[in-house]
Amino acid sequence: MSPASSEIFLPDGVFVANLTPLREDLSVDHPALAAHCRWLLEQGADGIALLGTTGEANSFGLRERIGLIESVLEAGIPGNRLMVGTGCCAFPDTAALTRFAVESGAGGILMLPPFYYKPVSDEGLFRYFSLVIGQVNDSRLRIYLYHFPKLTGVPFSTPLVERLVCEFPGVVVGMKDSGGDWGHMQEVCGRLPGFRLYAGTERYLADVLGIGGAGCISATTNATAALAADVFRRWRAGEDVRARQEKLSAIRQAFEAGGFVPVLKQLFARWRQEEGWLRMRPPQAPLPDAAISRIADELKALGFEHPEKLSF
Amino acid sequence: MSPASSEIFLPDGVFVANLTPLREDLSVDHPALAAHCRWLLEQGADGIALLGTTGEANSFGLRERIGLIESVLEAGIPGNRLMVGTGCCAFPDTAALTRFAVESGAGGILMLPPFYYKPVSDEGLFRYFSLVIGQVNDSRLRIYLYHFPKLTGVPFSTPLVERLVCEFPGVVVGMKDSGGDWGHMQEVCGRLPGFRLYAGTERYLADVLGIGGAGCISATTNATAALAADVFRRWRAGEDVRARQEKLSAIRQAFEAGGFVPVLKQLFARWRQEEGWLRMRPPQAPLPDAAISRIADELKALGFEHPEKLSF
Repeated sequence: MSPASSEIFLPDGVFVANLTPLREDLSVDHPALAAHCRWLLEQGADGIALLGTTGEANSFGLRERIGLIESVLEAGIPGNRLMVGTGCCAFPDTAALTRFAVESGAGGILMLPPFYYKPVSDEGLFRYFSLVIGQVNDSRLRIYLYHFPKLTGVPFSTPLVERLVCEFPGVVVGMKDSGGDWGHMQEVCGRLPGFRLYAGTERYLADVLGIGGAGCISATTNATAALAADVFRRWRAGEDVRARQEKLSAIRQAFEAGGFVPVLKQLFARWRQEEGWLRMRPPQAPLPDAAISRIADELKALGFEHPEKLSF
Repeated sequence: MSPASSEIFLPDGVFVANLTPLREDLSVDHPALAAHCRWLLEQGADGIALLGTTGEANSFGLRERIGLIESVLEAGIPGNRLMVGTGCCAFPDTAALTRFAVESGAGGILMLPPFYYKPVSDEGLFRYFSLVIGQVNDSRLRIYLYHFPKLTGVPFSTPLVERLVCEFPGVVVGMKDSGGDWGHMQEVCGRLPGFRLYAGTERYLADVLGIGGAGCISATTNATAALAADVFRRWRAGEDVRARQEKLSAIRQAFEAGGFVPVLKQLFARWRQEEGWLRMRPPQAPLPDAAISRIADELKALGFEHPEKLSF
C-alpha cells in the first residue's frame, strides 16, 4: 500500500511549520521568508512545511499562497524539502493550489480536510479527496493528510485513512498528526505499516520514530530545529536519546503558554531584534509583553536563551 | 448606535438561506438558482441570504462566489432583498467579496468570523473586522455578524458585538444568530436595542420578533417560506400566532434529522421531480433514500406534503 522509498520525495526527520514574515501592509515579506527557510535548513531541519497553521496559511488568499510558494522555490529552497499546505474549504481552490505546488516541484502536499461543514460523513470526505486527486491528476502528487481536529473540527477516522490509502496507493502516503493523542498515532502506525506519519509536535519525535513513524512537523521547531534534528540523527544512529528528548519536550512545553503564532513571532522579534516579526494577520493578535517575557524566562531557565545560544 | 430605519437597506421578516442548484460538473446552475430565488420571493420570503451555510458557500472559490452574486442580480433579484455571505478565513478574500457584493447593490452582508484559528481573542477578531471594513470603505456597507459557533468554533462574545457596533455604527447593524441558544438571542437583543437580530431558525421567529429582533434567516425556509412569512405577517398585524408558530416549529423540527444540505436538496429533488437537485459539493454527501423517506413521511403526517401543497 505504501510507495517504495525512492518514490517518497520527502525525507524523514524534523520538519518546521515555518512562520510567515510580513511587511507593514501585512503582505508576505518574501525575502525574509526565504531567509528564514534557509536558516531553518541550516539549523538542521530536514524539511519545511510551508503554509501550515503556523504559517497563517488560512489567512492568505489563493493568489497570495501561490505567490508565496513561487517565491520560496525561486529563492532556491529545494522542492524535495518542501511539504506545502494546500487544503482549503472549496475543492476547486484545493485542487488549483495543489496542482500549482506539485507542478512547481514541491515534494509533498499537506492537505487539511474541508473544515467548515461539520459533522460530515467519511463518505463526503472521501468524495472530496477523490475529486481533488482526480483534478490534480499528476503522478508526482504525494498527499499527507493534515489531522488537526481541534482546529478543523473534522477528524480523519482511521477507516477513512485506510480507504484513502487503499484507493490511492502512492498518492495518499502519510499524515501530519496534530491531534496530540498518542493513542491515535499508535493506531494509525499500527494499522498502516509504511504510512509516513509525522507527529505534530517534537514532544513525540522519538516515540513516533519508535513505532515506525517518519518524524515530526511542528510549529515550535521554528525555534527548536537544531535540538530536534540532533535527537533525530542520534536516534537514527542508534543512540539512547531519552535525556535529549526530555530536554526537547520540556522546551517545547514552555512555548505552549499561548497561541504559537504570536508566541513565536514575538520571541523571534526579541531574538533577532527585528520589529517586523511582530506583524501577524488578524485574527492572530499579539500577546502582552509580560506573557512573552514569562515564556522567555522559562526557556532561559531550561538553558534556551535563543535558538542559536543554548547553555546545556 | 443603530442606523435610522431608512438606512437599513434590508427588510424585517423571513429570509431564506437558499440552496445552490448545481450542474453535472458541480458548477453553479445559474438559471436554476435565479429561478429558485424568484420562487422563494413569490412564496412570501422577505429576503434571500445568498451564499450562506445552506448555499454551500464555503465549498465555492472566490471567483465562483463573485459569479454567483453577479448572476442572481443580473437575473433581476432585487439587491434590497439580498443578504450576501462573504466571510472567508483570509481578510483579503472577505474584503474583496464584500466590496463586490456592496458595489453590486446587495442590501446587506452576512459575515462569518475567520473560522480556522481557534481560540482567538476578541482583540484579534476586532482587528479582523476593522481591517475588512476599512478595506471595503463604502458607506453602503451593512454587516450582519454570522454567529454559528457549532460550525465556526469562533463565537461572537457580546462584548465584541458591542465594541463592533459602537466602533462602526450604521455599519455593523445586526446578526444572524445560528447558535440555537435562546438566552444568547435575549442577551443580544436586550443589550443592543435597534440591533437587527435574525434568529437562525424559524422556530424562534415569533419569539425573536417579540424581543425586538428583525426576523429569521433559515435553511429550512427553503421549504417553509410561505408558512413562516404567514406567521410573520400575522404577528405584525397583531394577531395571536401561537398555534401557527407551533405548527411551523414542528415542521422545522422534522427537517432536523440530517444535514440540511442533503436533506433539503434530496427533498426538492422529490418535490420537483428533478434529479439535478441531488447534486451537492463534497464534503456534503447524499443521505440514504430511506432517511429522506422518513423525513418526508413525518412532514406528511404534519400536513406538509410539498411546499406548495399543505393540508391544514
